[in-house]
Amino acid sequence: MTTNRLEAFSDGVIAIIVTIMVLELHSPARADWPSLLKVAPALLSYGLSFLIVAIMWVNHHHLIHVAHKVTAGLLWSNLNLLFWMSLVPFVTDFVGKNYREPMAVALYGLALFFCSCAFYLLRKELMRQAGTDSKLVDYPAGMQRKNAMSAALYFSAAPLAYATVYASFFIFALIPAMYFLPEKKLATQQQG
Amino acid sequence: MTTNRLEAFSDGVIAIIVTIMVLELHSPARADWPSLLKVAPALLSYGLSFLIVAIMWVNHHHLIHVAHKVTAGLLWSNLNLLFWMSLVPFVTDFVGKNYREPMAVALYGLALFFCSCAFYLLRKELMRQAGTDSKLVDYPAGMQRKNAMSAALYFSAAPLAYATVYASFFIFALIPAMYFLPEKKLATQQQG
Amino acid sequence: MTTNRLEAFSDGVIAIIVTIMVLELHSPARADWPSLLKVAPALLSYGLSFLIVAIMWVNHHHLIHVAHKVTAGLLWSNLNLLFWMSLVPFVTDFVGKNYREPMAVALYGLALFFCSCAFYLLRKELMRQAGTDSKLVDYPAGMQRKNAMSAALYFSAAPLAYATVYASFFIFALIPAMYFLPEKKLATQQQG
Amino acid sequence: MTTNRLEAFSDGVIAIIVTIMVLELHSPARADWPSLLKVAPALLSYGLSFLIVAIMWVNHHHLIHVAHKVTAGLLWSNLNLLFWMSLVPFVTDFVGKNYREPMAVALYGLALFFCSCAFYLLRKELMRQAGTDSKLVDYPAGMQRKNAMSAALYFSAAPLAYATVYASFFIFALIPAMYFLPEKKLATQQQG
Repeated sequence: MTTNRLEAFSDGVIAIIVTIMVLELHSPARADWPSLLKVAPALLSYGLSFLIVAIMWVNHHHLIHVAHKVTAGLLWSNLNLLFWMSLVPFVTDFVGKNYREPMAVALYGLALFFCSCAFYLLRKELMRQAGTDSKLVDYPAGMQRKNAMSAALYFSAAPLAYATVYASFFIFALIPAMYFLPEKKLATQQQG
Repeated sequence: MTTNRLEAFSDGVIAIIVTIMVLELHSPARADWPSLLKVAPALLSYGLSFLIVAIMWVNHHHLIHVAHKVTAGLLWSNLNLLFWMSLVPFVTDFVGKNYREPMAVALYGLALFFCSCAFYLLRKELMRQAGTDSKLVDYPAGMQRKNAMSAALYFSAAPLAYATVYASFFIFALIPAMYFLPEKKLATQQQG
Repeated sequence: MTTNRLEAFSDGVIAIIVTIMVLELHSPARADWPSLLKVAPALLSYGLSFLIVAIMWVNHHHLIHVAHKVTAGLLWSNLNLLFWMSLVPFVTDFVGKNYREPMAVALYGLALFFCSCAFYLLRKELMRQAGTDSKLVDYPAGMQRKNAMSAALYFSAAPLAYATVYASFFIFALIPAMYFLPEKKLATQQQG
Repeated sequence: MTTNRLEAFSDGVIAIIVTIMVLELHSPARADWPSLLKVAPALLSYGLSFLIVAIMWVNHHHLIHVAHKVTAGLLWSNLNLLFWMSLVPFVTDFVGKNYREPMAVALYGLALFFCSCAFYLLRKELMRQAGTDSKLVDYPAGMQRKNAMSAALYFSAAPLAYATVYASFFIFALIPAMYFLPEKKLATQQQG
């Protein structure tokens, strides 16, 4: 298997994950404002999850791009990541229906925590594969610190939800913002 | 990331968007004409949305084809477009179930308006990237005017729905017709 | 746009069509034989549609392979075909739930008739594009006759369903059998 | 048709199969532990099926990689495999809802048995195609034995479920473990 094929399959799965979430947005049966307002939390949680999965997709490409060959370790680290990402539609639907319930918010945080952990393992696998190739080591090492931080934040969002769900939502909004900016910088560097 | 990969991922998402809408066409439980007539508006709104998304797909290709490199601006303009396009199945289902309700029709118009705006931003990003490359500037400039016009029409369809939904539906049918013809001309030119 | 991209997008849509039909197979809530027997018609209609769509996919590849360039005519003939194919999950679900109702069976036949017509138009477009290229003309001409015949058979299945649905089901099973064998011969020739 | 296209289409179908299963994980309407515990069997059966389909995907690649040309036999052996794999979401949902019912567990086992048989036929087709190419014959022959063994185990899981479903679940967990390890060894060899 080539890294191209791994990338194409992952792209397929991520494209489906990001799109099927919209199937869980059941449009209200009646067209009035109260009915539409009832689906607003589901729409917002969909928007947030779309953003988070989109960022994961971008990061995933930067990662797989670094890979030379598809080892069993890489293959299964990647499938492990796809598994946790595939749970995002489930927890998105759950939190959209129960956005004031600490348990739903905590579960959303935990699912994203496991995605972060899976990214951490995938990156570790790639760094191990890269060995002493200095050009590759520096970039992932910086990313790895940021990855560990966001994993810790997602993890902390779970117990925080039992204090107030707004603190957890603040974290869920903060992490995309945190990732977004440096990704921009990186892309700009790649042009130069 | 290469423009090929961006195109392939976008293709995947658009292929899913265009196809999952059919999942929201719940076939009637009983096989008689009154039951089938009840799903007719859903079928018609599906047909219209299929056409609109197909046109967007064609336009998207002509656009991405122009891109040289995947900058962060291009990447996120594209993901922004895919987000708004991913809402099309939701509003299609909504208008299919409530085709006489101004609010549902207005929401359908607004979703398409945001898609048009996202196209506008994506094209602007590409023109900025192309810089002074004269061959590229002329084509998008003409498209950009048409794009702005269709965005304005979609936007006007929202308040119009509160006067009569038929005016809005006329606009929804007019814009594909408007796009369809020139695309044909363009494709003919490309052959020559 | 290249024919590769057209093929990849069509592949994506057809892969989704063939797979999402399984989502409409709602597994029975209780695990006993009467409940399972109730979904048996849905399973059978799924199997039939899977076979029919798989054959369409194979034929589609042989067709697109012949194309030199993506003209507007080819693009929209292809999108027209994908539209009618995308209705197959809807009529499959409908006939699975109402397999003894002439109307559901007739509708299934009509949807496949429109798919056949779309194939006819697509092949006509390709033959027009091929012009006087003799190697290409012979193969599609033979296919075109078979295509017209199967379209006529699907069309006749609709009124026949009102006499007896079994005659229609016989036709639905006959056409895949008819297509299947020559495809095998063709593939054997391509090896030689 | 090239083997690349066959692989890409199969990838698309498998990516959809593996991802749409999550759509059948209906998130509980209320956010409390008893509601979440009710979906736990569905989550576990999803996890198991994800792993099984992922392994099938990996094996599928190793297989198709060996193919030289797309013959009708290969094409239809592959489509046959995709058909049985496409039933996995259906039986996963069924067993998730009825994990203590022998019939649901037996059906899950039977579906996987048919997938194994389809793999067997596909590998046989490839070995026939490879003919006397010694390098190719050794690897599939070893796999073929393992394949036949797992097919037999899946088949035995069906009657075993009527004794105790736990024995069947033990088999369902054992086979992925059995496949997982050698795949790792194989991938390591390919690196060397």
